[in-house]
Amino acid sequence: MTFSLRDKYCIVGIGETSYTKKSGRTVLDLASEACQKAIEDAGLQRGEVDGIVSFNFNDSVPAISVATALGIPQAMYAVDYASGGNAANLIVLAAVAALEAGLATHVVCYRAMNGRSGFRLGGGREMKAAGITQHTAPYGWITYPQAMAMWCRRHMIRYGTTSEQLAAVAISTRANAVANERAMQRQPITLDDYMSSRRIVDPFRMLDICLESDGACAVVVTHRDRARDLRQKPVHIMGGAYGGGPNQGDDLFDALRWPEHARNYSHYIAADLWSSAGVGPKDVDVAEIYDCFTYSVLMQLEGFGFCAEGEGGPFVQAGHIAKGGRLPVNTHGGLLSEAYIHGFNHVLEAVRQLRGTAGANQVADARIAMTTAGAMTCGSALLLRN
Amino acid sequence: MTFSLRDKYCIVGIGETSYTKKSGRTVLDLASEACQKAIEDAGLQRGEVDGIVSFNFNDSVPAISVATALGIPQAMYAVDYASGGNAANLIVLAAVAALEAGLATHVVCYRAMNGRSGFRLGGGREMKAAGITQHTAPYGWITYPQAMAMWCRRHMIRYGTTSEQLAAVAISTRANAVANERAMQRQPITLDDYMSSRRIVDPFRMLDICLESDGACAVVVTHRDRARDLRQKPVHIMGGAYGGGPNQGDDLFDALRWPEHARNYSHYIAADLWSSAGVGPKDVDVAEIYDCFTYSVLMQLEGFGFCAEGEGGPFVQAGHIAKGGRLPVNTHGGLLSEAYIHGFNHVLEAVRQLRGTAGANQVADARIAMTTAGAMTCGSALLLRN
Repeated sequence: MTFSLRDKYCIVGIGETSYTKKSGRTVLDLASEACQKAIEDAGLQRGEVDGIVSFNFNDSVPAISVATALGIPQAMYAVDYASGGNAANLIVLAAVAALEAGLATHVVCYRAMNGRSGFRLGGGREMKAAGITQHTAPYGWITYPQAMAMWCRRHMIRYGTTSEQLAAVAISTRANAVANERAMQRQPITLDDYMSSRRIVDPFRMLDICLESDGACAVVVTHRDRARDLRQKPVHIMGGAYGGGPNQGDDLFDALRWPEHARNYSHYIAADLWSSAGVGPKDVDVAEIYDCFTYSVLMQLEGFGFCAEGEGGPFVQAGHIAKGGRLPVNTHGGLLSEAYIHGFNHVLEAVRQLRGTAGANQVADARIAMTTAGAMTCGSALLLRN
Repeated sequence: MTFSLRDKYCIVGIGETSYTKKSGRTVLDLASEACQKAIEDAGLQRGEVDGIVSFNFNDSVPAISVATALGIPQAMYAVDYASGGNAANLIVLAAVAALEAGLATHVVCYRAMNGRSGFRLGGGREMKAAGITQHTAPYGWITYPQAMAMWCRRHMIRYGTTSEQLAAVAISTRANAVANERAMQRQPITLDDYMSSRRIVDPFRMLDICLESDGACAVVVTHRDRARDLRQKPVHIMGGAYGGGPNQGDDLFDALRWPEHARNYSHYIAADLWSSAGVGPKDVDVAEIYDCFTYSVLMQLEGFGFCAEGEGGPFVQAGHIAKGGRLPVNTHGGLLSEAYIHGFNHVLEAVRQLRGTAGANQVADARIAMTTAGAMTCGSALLLRN
């Protein structure tokens, strides 16, 4: 099946907190600030919002708490997905589906976390809590970087992908962050910096791995007819897709029964994504691609068809994803350098690009933007236009 | 807003495990059995199902694990809601919304839990884990029955509701369970049994409170056009609603800032529910009403307009919800006597009633059935027809 509501719904507001290592605030407070700003940006009154949707890994507050904190008079569609970053675009698609079914009028979607000072994802705690690592923990194999490293190594073995190519992602992403005042990491990096950065788990160095961040970001989604009266020029949701391939299992380690570790979810949802929007890779002006790790970008460039399978490495090394390149990627600095708000900050950057308010990294005349979320067996993606 | 997809989607399959105190099996195994039976009941091949949706309170397995265990070749819409029983009908509405948006073709919805032998809801552990009871735990106020007791007492004070009226719910529900081979509690009870049952928290006795159960149940949802070719006569989803009133807060204790404790969510979603389906309370032939506590049934009878506010007690005492009454309620024995699968087993009983396969408790010529889910500030409801 293919998402069938092309251009019918829009993102009409965005809001975010500052991104820090130690917010000194509750997740509820962060979420409320981001949502309130998004609602104000849209030019809506809080009383007009009746839907609120988020996702979390048991590290956040329920959406209904945020609705109550915001003073939304009556939340009729307050929903939390129990999910990792693969849901960062799913929640927007789910909001659209809920709007289409008549379950809400205006929906605010957000992700909020004290991802550095509070519950740190990636250390294995959430997997231990779920009992997922019971068979691997005895071997010391318990964290995301460890699981992802296996996939990356597979790509290197199969296609000759190199550390220099991974570095190209880290360097171009950081270069974008330099001009972004929101970004947590803004000092430029060189290949030498990359190569000498600390080894975390082979083949990953520190600079291959995304940040840990405290913060929140939010968008408001509504029907195009309602969008006409609002403050901002709407960003239309052209298309989207969610899903993955066979035997997705329930977490990173189960994912190792995946048949082909040099592919990820993007390979399996690409056809649906493009047909939902009626465009192809060549039509995309700017892409915000889930970069929990540098190599994840390569797999998604291949999976979504921006280059052939196995050619992600040469593609980034040729400078195609850098500023001024064929396909500017992660123009805000991404999860590697702006902040890791579980992928949802990508959606806000895509909206800024399509509004023409992306500052120094604005892609000239950007008309179509893509956002992706996910790195392994399951993920989601959106195509947006102005 | 009002659910706008009247009669367009159907429930075409149901499946469930046995309901026990100690399954001796994993939640994954329970979930897989219920889903597989529902898919088989529909006459579908597993390869045709590409959506799987559940909800849990951090006490179950991810839907994608169940998809993998079932051998569903490619799950494209595997979603978990982080929610309590209020989501038991929401997941059906969400499945419909996803189908309408083109995100899946056939969706299986389920709830699976080892609610007695595994993670026991209601003991306060899940609330403690979320930090919710930090201000009330020092006073020993930590469990669902305690919170619900305050609401029930409010109803008694305001409307003169009596223990005998609560007993009428327990007794008629148990009477229905006697003939239901799936039910965990099948011995008939009298008013004396009720009155002499152990006090748990004033005004609740043991027989006011639902069971704790191990088990799983599932339904398959699809478009009416696809339903035509399937094995069972489809049960159409006429309408539905999800939501609640102001200041829902994030859990039971926050709910005490609710403005009126003699009302619950049902009061606030009733108008949307009836208008979505184009029918009213008088059109409902059988109702499966969320009965985590006896008194919850009274509040929902009032909130949905089956009787006037405050008249829930006299309504049940007059026998209207019993077998052969004006509005047969919880014809399977409900959460009080069949099993507590977090409200989702209500949906299966409604389908059986509309198929005419409800056995000794079949309501003659049942054409329209209602299911509800939720007891306090937030909830969901469905109207189904054959």
